[in-house]
Amino acid sequence: MNYLSKQASHIPTAFLSPQHVAEIVQTRGLAAVFAGMAEAIRYDFLRWEEFDKSARVANHSAKGVIELMPIADAKTYSFKYVNGHPGNTQRGLSTVMAFGVLADVDTGVPLLVSELTLTTALRTAATSVMAAQALARPDSRVMALIGNGAQSEFQALAFHHLMGIEELRLYDIDPVATAKLMRNLSSTKLRLVKCSSASEAALGADIITTVTADKTKATIITPDMVAPGMHINGVGGDCPGKTELHADVLRLGPVFVEYAPQSRVEGDVQQMPADFPVTELWQVLKGSAMGRSNAEQVTVFDSVGFALEDYSALRFMREQSIALGIGEPLPLIPALADPKDLFSVLGTAAPTAPHSRARGLLGVHDAPHF
Amino acid sequence: MNYLSKQASHIPTAFLSPQHVAEIVQTRGLAAVFAGMAEAIRYDFLRWEEFDKSARVANHSAKGVIELMPIADAKTYSFKYVNGHPGNTQRGLSTVMAFGVLADVDTGVPLLVSELTLTTALRTAATSVMAAQALARPDSRVMALIGNGAQSEFQALAFHHLMGIEELRLYDIDPVATAKLMRNLSSTKLRLVKCSSASEAALGADIITTVTADKTKATIITPDMVAPGMHINGVGGDCPGKTELHADVLRLGPVFVEYAPQSRVEGDVQQMPADFPVTELWQVLKGSAMGRSNAEQVTVFDSVGFALEDYSALRFMREQSIALGIGEPLPLIPALADPKDLFSVLGTAAPTAPHSRARGLLGVHDAPHF
Repeated sequence: MNYLSKQASHIPTAFLSPQHVAEIVQTRGLAAVFAGMAEAIRYDFLRWEEFDKSARVANHSAKGVIELMPIADAKTYSFKYVNGHPGNTQRGLSTVMAFGVLADVDTGVPLLVSELTLTTALRTAATSVMAAQALARPDSRVMALIGNGAQSEFQALAFHHLMGIEELRLYDIDPVATAKLMRNLSSTKLRLVKCSSASEAALGADIITTVTADKTKATIITPDMVAPGMHINGVGGDCPGKTELHADVLRLGPVFVEYAPQSRVEGDVQQMPADFPVTELWQVLKGSAMGRSNAEQVTVFDSVGFALEDYSALRFMREQSIALGIGEPLPLIPALADPKDLFSVLGTAAPTAPHSRARGLLGVHDAPHF
Repeated sequence: MNYLSKQASHIPTAFLSPQHVAEIVQTRGLAAVFAGMAEAIRYDFLRWEEFDKSARVANHSAKGVIELMPIADAKTYSFKYVNGHPGNTQRGLSTVMAFGVLADVDTGVPLLVSELTLTTALRTAATSVMAAQALARPDSRVMALIGNGAQSEFQALAFHHLMGIEELRLYDIDPVATAKLMRNLSSTKLRLVKCSSASEAALGADIITTVTADKTKATIITPDMVAPGMHINGVGGDCPGKTELHADVLRLGPVFVEYAPQSRVEGDVQQMPADFPVTELWQVLKGSAMGRSNAEQVTVFDSVGFALEDYSALRFMREQSIALGIGEPLPLIPALADPKDLFSVLGTAAPTAPHSRARGLLGVHDAPHF
């Protein structure tokens, strides 16, 4: 009997805050979390065809976008809420914030409400490394990490722990971001080389990872920076108008994507004609499409982040939360003795948490005012 | 300075459980909540054109459907998660469960996560009565209430308090449901007349409200039951394949809907040709379309439940929760000293609630495992 089920057998919904997720990572260890999450994503990518892959719904405004990304298989439904507001950092807020839900397909009961800001960073890095394991040269040891913002430590450590990367060549237009990254990685065994340009960072790298945040058509990577055998892990070019790779970089070798219909709108391949050839990663994992064919080839993973990765990440976090007893019950759905008697809930208001001032309020009003 | 902002100035998201909503209703009184909510919905219907009305996204399975219903104006975004699983009552679960979110359009910050099972029942009844105030005869005193399930008490009391209904004529195929409704309404001043058929219930009624739950093409109301001057408040015919009104009932007088593109798919008007005339309710409220033109006319409100009503209901509940200090902070988004330093959250795991076993877990593992 675990903590969650013991605490609240009548509350089917669990809640995970960023602190809960941090506890899970601290308890399991970051390397194990990356490995487990990459495995969960790989497992779900291998059953790609079982998923009902709805389009995401986006509400655009002058300052940003708010999106809902639903996906479901026959058993479990999930969706992610995620925003993108480039101006947020000026207000001390994150550019991207997210949360998500897992629900039971057979009943519609929400099983988990979870933060997805931290979890998205973990799953994005896990996806990147899972793709690199299939596409990069296995002897890759040096990675250029261009863009040293919120996502960069996760990429650095996932590639260190799961891909054997030993040296990172760092560059960001903001030296403060690079200093922060170096500080956060100072206790690891990674060799950190601070570079003064993207070109310098790319020099001698086996893998180039781009995680820049600029919401413009950028060309962070140009063909002259790319040597034979490199794998390019393009993470930051992930919405319409936001690219990182020069179009000619995409012509240097095979381009791999998560979900072609989405990537052609959001990914770096948005620059290319509609018939530009791309391969969906799940086909490589499944063995039905070729990945890297030789050590001289340049491979490109044009990652945008797909709803299935969030599904897998939520599923993984839910399993961890149950196994470790980390999380809280969230009273989101009324517990009804008689499903036809919803009205009776109005007569049963009671404090749901120590914070609640229900007692005080009920003291003022002794009886319901029907 | 109110409770919510005092308790958690660094947590921008508030949480309302069904118990919190019940507390708000008990504190304000049900009549005041119906009035305030109807006013909030009317206010938002009057600025109809300011809203970005996205289509809902539905994931269908063998046993039901899970939907996301987003909507936004220039300031506030909302979405609702709602399921529909007709077989749930056999498992002791509600057919329909829901929750929703309000977010700030300028930053994407989620401001409120709230239950919407109870709140949907409140807003549906508030919408019904708001429509009836515009469409029914003002001297209506007798209402037939056909379908005595989870929604029925809310309809009964909204029409009692806001429309002056004094007598209810009740019918349900399940006499236990009618007995439950009569028990729940026993302390009110409503005259309750138990009827043995829908026809008998309709006899002498000024308003017929249908809130049946059968997920089939039903014809609860046939033209012979409808007398001149009646207003029909059709609430239960609200998804493809689920209707309550005989097609000829829809030809007895003008038909009003919330949002025509949605109602033509989900409402009773799904039975009618694509060019069957319907009037959107907001146009009547605004004075740009005719409502009832005389006391002899039959009017039909073919209600399906629209995302804007949930937006208004969430907005109303948020205002109440802040004013009354009811609710709890929900740590959904990490609070970051430096938005580019998401990674640092991993090192700051701490108990977020008395329930949390974080201390114990951290006791086993003194330091993060990076």
